[in-house]
Amino acid sequence: MTDTLLNRRDLDFQLYEVLDTASLCDRERFTEHSRETFNAVIETADRIAREKFAPHNALADQDEPRFEDGKVTMRAEVKEAMDAYSEAGFIAGRYDYELGGMQLPETVMTACNGFFMAANPSTSGYPFLTTAAANVIRIFGSEQQQALYLQPMLEGRFTGTMALTEPQAGSSLADIRTTAVPAEQGHYLIKGAKIYISGGEHELSDNIVNLVLARVRGAPEGVKGISMFIVPKYRLNEQGEPGDRNGIELAGLIHKLGYRGTTSTALSLGSDRECHGYLVGEENQGLKYMFQMMNEARLGVGFGATAIGYRGYMHSLEYARDRRQGRHPSDKDPSSQPVPIIEHADVRRMLLAQKSYVEGAFALCMYGARLVDDHNTHPDEKRRHEARQLLDLLTPVIKAWPSEYGPKANDLAIQVYGGAGYTREYPVEQCWRDNRLNPIHEGTNGIQAMDLLGRKVWQGGGEAIQLLFGAIQQDLQNAETEQCKQWAYSLSETLQQAGQVTQVLGKALGEESPEKALANASVYLRLFGHIVIAWMWLRQANVAEARLTENPQGSEANFYQGKLQAAKYFFHWELPTVAQDLVILRNMDDSCFGMKDEWF
Amino acid sequence: MTDTLLNRRDLDFQLYEVLDTASLCDRERFTEHSRETFNAVIETADRIAREKFAPHNALADQDEPRFEDGKVTMRAEVKEAMDAYSEAGFIAGRYDYELGGMQLPETVMTACNGFFMAANPSTSGYPFLTTAAANVIRIFGSEQQQALYLQPMLEGRFTGTMALTEPQAGSSLADIRTTAVPAEQGHYLIKGAKIYISGGEHELSDNIVNLVLARVRGAPEGVKGISMFIVPKYRLNEQGEPGDRNGIELAGLIHKLGYRGTTSTALSLGSDRECHGYLVGEENQGLKYMFQMMNEARLGVGFGATAIGYRGYMHSLEYARDRRQGRHPSDKDPSSQPVPIIEHADVRRMLLAQKSYVEGAFALCMYGARLVDDHNTHPDEKRRHEARQLLDLLTPVIKAWPSEYGPKANDLAIQVYGGAGYTREYPVEQCWRDNRLNPIHEGTNGIQAMDLLGRKVWQGGGEAIQLLFGAIQQDLQNAETEQCKQWAYSLSETLQQAGQVTQVLGKALGEESPEKALANASVYLRLFGHIVIAWMWLRQANVAEARLTENPQGSEANFYQGKLQAAKYFFHWELPTVAQDLVILRNMDDSCFGMKDEWF
Repeated sequence: MTDTLLNRRDLDFQLYEVLDTASLCDRERFTEHSRETFNAVIETADRIAREKFAPHNALADQDEPRFEDGKVTMRAEVKEAMDAYSEAGFIAGRYDYELGGMQLPETVMTACNGFFMAANPSTSGYPFLTTAAANVIRIFGSEQQQALYLQPMLEGRFTGTMALTEPQAGSSLADIRTTAVPAEQGHYLIKGAKIYISGGEHELSDNIVNLVLARVRGAPEGVKGISMFIVPKYRLNEQGEPGDRNGIELAGLIHKLGYRGTTSTALSLGSDRECHGYLVGEENQGLKYMFQMMNEARLGVGFGATAIGYRGYMHSLEYARDRRQGRHPSDKDPSSQPVPIIEHADVRRMLLAQKSYVEGAFALCMYGARLVDDHNTHPDEKRRHEARQLLDLLTPVIKAWPSEYGPKANDLAIQVYGGAGYTREYPVEQCWRDNRLNPIHEGTNGIQAMDLLGRKVWQGGGEAIQLLFGAIQQDLQNAETEQCKQWAYSLSETLQQAGQVTQVLGKALGEESPEKALANASVYLRLFGHIVIAWMWLRQANVAEARLTENPQGSEANFYQGKLQAAKYFFHWELPTVAQDLVILRNMDDSCFGMKDEWF
Repeated sequence: MTDTLLNRRDLDFQLYEVLDTASLCDRERFTEHSRETFNAVIETADRIAREKFAPHNALADQDEPRFEDGKVTMRAEVKEAMDAYSEAGFIAGRYDYELGGMQLPETVMTACNGFFMAANPSTSGYPFLTTAAANVIRIFGSEQQQALYLQPMLEGRFTGTMALTEPQAGSSLADIRTTAVPAEQGHYLIKGAKIYISGGEHELSDNIVNLVLARVRGAPEGVKGISMFIVPKYRLNEQGEPGDRNGIELAGLIHKLGYRGTTSTALSLGSDRECHGYLVGEENQGLKYMFQMMNEARLGVGFGATAIGYRGYMHSLEYARDRRQGRHPSDKDPSSQPVPIIEHADVRRMLLAQKSYVEGAFALCMYGARLVDDHNTHPDEKRRHEARQLLDLLTPVIKAWPSEYGPKANDLAIQVYGGAGYTREYPVEQCWRDNRLNPIHEGTNGIQAMDLLGRKVWQGGGEAIQLLFGAIQQDLQNAETEQCKQWAYSLSETLQQAGQVTQVLGKALGEESPEKALANASVYLRLFGHIVIAWMWLRQANVAEARLTENPQGSEANFYQGKLQAAKYFFHWELPTVAQDLVILRNMDDSCFGMKDEWF
């Protein structure tokens, strides 16, 4: 079992060679930062993740939270880890100095969070949800709400949740039934039931700040009638400290396949005692506020899937180097020494596929984080706008592609271990179970596909997709070596065909057969994702080729050669598979659309 | 949670419409059978599987076997199920009447076992391992060994195991170190360690008959020096009843990701007390005997993977029909009633993909079982020989394709359930965990790929592959409708290209670069598997089209339409994906082969 969470060399490559993160320090918001301060905070994250998060990852999986004596109890290490995370300032890492934050770029915070997610996705869930909820209150909450809730959340004294899903509605937010009735004192009385609420009950913090979606009596039907409320576990007293128990209560713990260390709860609101909620922003605008949090969460899911995939890759790579078994096909001497299994071509295939998936996804997530930074802090307003457009377009891809291919990487990691990988004595089966959540939560990948093909691609009259094509074009032109030019050519060809298919689908969406055009949205998402990841590999290969001309030695040369070989794998083994996706999309193949319930 | 284990209509289709199993009754061995007796035994299997196996499938997963007070204890339902299985005569189902058997064809026994594996793969493991071990003793054991061990095994009083794997050797049987030293009384003294031995310790039977691979002192190195021994848990006394404890003892239980109800053990032989082993057949012939059992086991693994995949499909189909959520994209009225999720195109995609995987794999496994019958009982010797050749060729495909695509089906089943599928309150996550073993055990799929490309394809100077091409050709010619002819054309084209690629690889194997040619064996296996499954779908489609001309009504017409749509899915969405495999193989792409350890 390796101690390595993410490959630091790869992280430096992404941060400083592919993305030029150091240049962010020229921007006003980050003037007090430097590559040294970024590295110091990254080293702190790596260390805390290894010392406080990783050691109880398997333990918390085996010994999941329990409901006992009216309380949800869990292993003590979870709180110790959370405390270490917030004491090191990570919850407020992105925020202004005046809020007690570190004013770190998103790119750097994302890198830091990668270590925590790789070390222990379940325990990471508590602070990450808190950050996401705090951010909604920071942006949309009233001054009073910020005074009461934001500061304790940033300090880790209060934790946060997103309480959206209801048993009868699932992903369909239009069908939310929880009600809110205004009371004279300014609060609302909330009544309803929520399900799959991560972190909805525990004793890790002094208070839990639930952001609850509900419908004010008389509101319009559907998503236009959804409002958002702060619903704390304990109402605050006049000193702003947790006082009376509020009527949001545990109806049951949900037992999951993985991510077992994160409590998943069914909550009942206003059933036994009054449940007070405090409106965020305006009535009926809840969906908008929710999407602030949801979009962040979607990027987080993609990165979590990448980190778990990455961790499994690190484990299986170490195992393949240590474990000796079998011989080369040409070695017929049974008395010769067995070779490390990394020598077997099929094991190398499984490792290289993992590398191409997780490092490709990692590059994409870091690129996405940089778009957040550019949207927030680029000095040129046009570039800020463009970054936002690109980020919106890529959000479903950043959520879905890593959450498909991260689990695939973990599947391969198990197979590298063989029988050992199927046992609970080795860590990769947990990676695989944990990662299986990621294609489901924060909008299933099917929903991401509808978001991409039904909405994002056409947003702003296709402005975003033009920006994306432009950005890719730039990197196609940067290809200088024969090899990179060949890959650039493949990508360019695929891109052109994808553009044509997009036009075909756009026409169908606008005209005769919108449902038929949307029916293969998942295929479109896969196509789009593979193109974007191929682009990420071309960017990495361009840098690697340039570095290799400087004639580096030893491990440096090996690192760049590895990048090129993984790029080769992606361009030879993965990108061409979209040929079939293109055919299905172009023909609007109706094999699935035409299937009838009664034929199953 | 559905009560349906396998679709009976589909089973009848495979047995009586695709395979004409009733015609087996014309063969001498089966003259006392008829479609009625076949159906009676199938109904018994279905009933016992539902009543005795399915109810404790989840319970035994949650409450796995424990080592307590020197014994391995487990839930009482496991023994009740095993007893019901053997009392109904299934352990001896294939065997001669004089051995107390039912002389059932393999095709029918396979069908029966499908219900047990779908109901409870873990509990099924005990009787299935017993049947496999009994068969080795029946074929290769001495008369005395048969008298002592075979009968009690067929009655379920003794159970069996395959004890091959050792900690240091894993899949590499050449590196087995367990030793056997002849003693004067005719037995051998065995010393060594075995790992991952399913059913190696428990209290389900009066005795456990382990078939152990070991090396007689002075034997040649490698696989040529392996012998097989019967090593019972209790030595038999003069009455043939279990007497003294033999020195094969539990070193530890292995805790697995799935298949938790089956004990997986580390065994220590001859460490504390003498371990007596009784040679099966001749010294140094163990590998041959082992392959008798192993080949059966590989077919069993493929069918198990199919059955678990099938069960998950049945669950998710029921759920998709029951669960209402969301609306059609064109329905903008949020007050309209949500639709069953099977109405969503993407859910239909996930169900249809499952159907195409599990019914395709099911057809292949039944075809394989029929080859066993033809090899054993076909009146024409040439046909017996041919059946054996085909079966040998297809064994790695029957093992590997379902064990790749069964788990994929289970993955889709989870996704159909959404958040619910990720919880342990619903049955599909267990299917997925259980099924993950199948690409690993009885030879990993990587080993199957080497077996296929490195050995089976060239066996008998390519006789088997010619037979396969001939068999496929027959079904290509049987295509009568426009649609089937189109699919036949696609298949025929792919087959031709695969033939060319096979020649290219054959040349490389014989000449300059055998290791490079073998490096992409897994891709070859995937190509081969997809072609075989496409063939299975063409066979089914040919029958369905023929039946539809008879103008069936209602559910019968729907059943055949469903077959055609699933065939369409396979021919439009799956078969074309091999284009990329063909390119990789033809070019002997070295992306993986060329990757170096130090570049990772």
